[in-house]
Amino acid sequence: MSGRTKFLLDESEMPTQWYNIIPDLPEPPPPPLHPGTKQPVGPDDLAPLFPQALIAQEVSGESYIDIPDEVQDVYRLWRPSPLYRAHRLERALGTPARIYYKYEGVSPVGSHKPNTAVPQAFYNAREGVTKLTTETGAGQWGSALAFACAVFGLECEVWQVRASYDQKPYRKLMMETFGATVHPSPSDLTVSGRAVLAEHPDSTGSLGIAISEAVEMAAADPDTRYALGSVLNHVLLHQTVIGEEALKQFELAGDTPDVIVGCTGGGSNFGGLAFPFLREKLAGRMSPAIRAVEPAACPSLTRGVYAYDFGDTAGLTPLLKMHTLGHGFIPDPIHAGGLRYHGMSPLLSHIYELGLIDAVALPQQECFAAGVRFARAEGIIPAPEPTHALAECVREALRCKETGEEKVILTALCGHAHLDLPAYGAYLGGEMIDHDLPEEEIERALAELPAST
Amino acid sequence: MSGRTKFLLDESEMPTQWYNIIPDLPEPPPPPLHPGTKQPVGPDDLAPLFPQALIAQEVSGESYIDIPDEVQDVYRLWRPSPLYRAHRLERALGTPARIYYKYEGVSPVGSHKPNTAVPQAFYNAREGVTKLTTETGAGQWGSALAFACAVFGLECEVWQVRASYDQKPYRKLMMETFGATVHPSPSDLTVSGRAVLAEHPDSTGSLGIAISEAVEMAAADPDTRYALGSVLNHVLLHQTVIGEEALKQFELAGDTPDVIVGCTGGGSNFGGLAFPFLREKLAGRMSPAIRAVEPAACPSLTRGVYAYDFGDTAGLTPLLKMHTLGHGFIPDPIHAGGLRYHGMSPLLSHIYELGLIDAVALPQQECFAAGVRFARAEGIIPAPEPTHALAECVREALRCKETGEEKVILTALCGHAHLDLPAYGAYLGGEMIDHDLPEEEIERALAELPAST
Ligand SMILES: Cc1ncc(COP(=O)(O)O)c(C=O)c1O
Ligand SMILES: Cc1ncc(COP(=O)(O)O)c(C=O)c1O
Repeated sequence: MSGRTKFLLDESEMPTQWYNIIPDLPEPPPPPLHPGTKQPVGPDDLAPLFPQALIAQEVSGESYIDIPDEVQDVYRLWRPSPLYRAHRLERALGTPARIYYKYEGVSPVGSHKPNTAVPQAFYNAREGVTKLTTETGAGQWGSALAFACAVFGLECEVWQVRASYDQKPYRKLMMETFGATVHPSPSDLTVSGRAVLAEHPDSTGSLGIAISEAVEMAAADPDTRYALGSVLNHVLLHQTVIGEEALKQFELAGDTPDVIVGCTGGGSNFGGLAFPFLREKLAGRMSPAIRAVEPAACPSLTRGVYAYDFGDTAGLTPLLKMHTLGHGFIPDPIHAGGLRYHGMSPLLSHIYELGLIDAVALPQQECFAAGVRFARAEGIIPAPEPTHALAECVREALRCKETGEEKVILTALCGHAHLDLPAYGAYLGGEMIDHDLPEEEIERALAELPAST
Repeated sequence: MSGRTKFLLDESEMPTQWYNIIPDLPEPPPPPLHPGTKQPVGPDDLAPLFPQALIAQEVSGESYIDIPDEVQDVYRLWRPSPLYRAHRLERALGTPARIYYKYEGVSPVGSHKPNTAVPQAFYNAREGVTKLTTETGAGQWGSALAFACAVFGLECEVWQVRASYDQKPYRKLMMETFGATVHPSPSDLTVSGRAVLAEHPDSTGSLGIAISEAVEMAAADPDTRYALGSVLNHVLLHQTVIGEEALKQFELAGDTPDVIVGCTGGGSNFGGLAFPFLREKLAGRMSPAIRAVEPAACPSLTRGVYAYDFGDTAGLTPLLKMHTLGHGFIPDPIHAGGLRYHGMSPLLSHIYELGLIDAVALPQQECFAAGVRFARAEGIIPAPEPTHALAECVREALRCKETGEEKVILTALCGHAHLDLPAYGAYLGGEMIDHDLPEEEIERALAELPAST
């Protein structure tokens, strides 16, 4: 283990394959079901929404899938991303633990999202698609897809939840700079949007409504497809470049992680970092604890149930077997917009059920306190989402301070907060609140789960 | 020359010395003068504002100055910064030119400013100073100093021009996250601020007033000093890490620049990149054209005079021999806030007079057009300031397309636009204007130059 700050890989060492963990699991995850027939969905059911290459990746039994040259070419604009040793944070905490962070904020939009936006745009363009639609809440996924579409000459149309559209004008401007068209959702451009507006003219929207609008527009036009930024197998697959790089960087560091922590919204940054390490663990080559951190306001893994549920609020998607708080669950408006999803990636949920990872839920003020501490020591202001992982790192590091253990902690620093600074303003100004989430509220939402399958 | 995208240096290859170009020039630049005596200012005149170490660097005759270990330690959080080959931009332009950019947006605040903020904070802390004051216009320099002060345990108090304070809340939030206190300027905390408010209660401020407030507060407290983010010799000195790294990276690339372009506000990012290459040029080892790009709205090099003038609007600073539009010149409110200074670094002005560099002034709409083109090809949205350099790159590249020349162009991409996205909004929305700058306006301001010396 060395005294260095950054562990960099040359671009010639960038992974050339994505890692598919499914064949290495003791059993495969349960398939998505058609909500009508309750039978597993087939490729034809998904064809109006996704290109064939992504549908094939979604159900692939191969352990490794080649990253196309055109995608590697774009990855090279920011990849390999740096692995940092947090010397200054360790000193500030007075811990004997060694803390490492894998930083994805170096991407064009400041998070891990382009790792999947780029291949998604590429495969769509290769299959002759000319336009992609998507929804965005916090705006990070919309920005990533806007960038990827600019690169491959696709049109990009984004439905941004009205509340976010109004509060986060910088995200909209970033999408527009990359050439995308951004609509507030609900909009009067779709049947689903108009239906909502007819009943609630002042609706501030929801991710569920925005998904319906984007899906509706994609399904209506044979040259248009839809893109999703988390949850699905192919998304987590693309994100494994993070963990594959981190493995090589740990070799450079001459160290091995004892604990790996990441925040989980839909599960993609966490899965992307953790799966290659989990492969090593399953093969008996290392034995890190692997821990998902979710917000106390939206605790799908720690307080949800493992059941078939819809991916969206309106109930238009296939049924996914996942940890869920119920598709009608509306989390508190916390500042980590990317962690406000009622469900969890089916693949990650399955892995959690297998006991291969653990999970913890933290209140947002503790997370922002860790974010500020981190910023003042390391210089990077973390996005609200990964402050959750950092808060758990701080807890671990302080436990080590008590016990004297020299644990090696690895965390996914999946984005910076340049476009989320008002959240830090709310924290520093004492205006941030943490409500307890009553059990009844979860029970109410779970009561609306689709009939057991 | 290779097909790579990024030329990275290991942190062990980070420069350990700053380069002082003055001893290598055919003659030294004229000294700053005391406005009363018209004699060269001595260290004692500057001691209330700057620590001894920086005063010594300001007048040093050494060619190389060691970078303290503590500063190198902090630099390593983001340095060495990457040199990129802009393959995608070249293809988009259809040019035979090879375009390289040295990217400083990887720093904690997203620009080159921390390269000098960190040593400035370090030397102050080492000499027992407990607080630094400064002004900030666009907010980039204030953020950099806030970060550096957090690292060395100094208090940081920033006077942010009122107009910017109101329009750029994200910059203020970034400074506060790093622990700084931010006041709008004019404020009622200083004599100079109160004087302005008494006459103009609704004043939106100016850099000149903010400088007066920060200087006044520093001078009044023996434990407080003042910090400046550009213009002075020691600032340009610290920025030479950029050019030293780029030289090594060009060796890796197996290439040599024919043209080097950078934007000039006070001259620090341009000087930082250019001076090490100018050393090589003076020694006959290469012969690049070196070109400063300034905004047409504030053309100190191309349309100003070379004369002794004040560094601030109120006339409180020593007299500096520099290219100036007159300290009373108020440039149009263009979006590149960092390029709205009436003067130019005395050192760079002297080098321009020696005929070692040339200069060009460009209108902002052409610059933002280049910025958008760059973003859609390379993924990075450039800060408004370096879009000026990029616009000149595009001009060069298109000239090469006509002539078939395979010129090698190097540009300083000194920052990203994450906190300046509204400027892109104005451009994309067709709301950006370029006024012609009438000769009379410059003549009027130049008429107020201090009596010739
Ligand atoms: C920075 C950041 N982190 C985390 C997330 C959560 O998504 P996932 O769990 O798929 O990584 C998001 C989603 O928007 C995000 O933008
Ligand atoms: C990103 C950026 N570029 C350029 C400048 C201009 O300053 P200088 O000429 O000293 O590099 C500034 C100053 O604020 C800046 O923030």
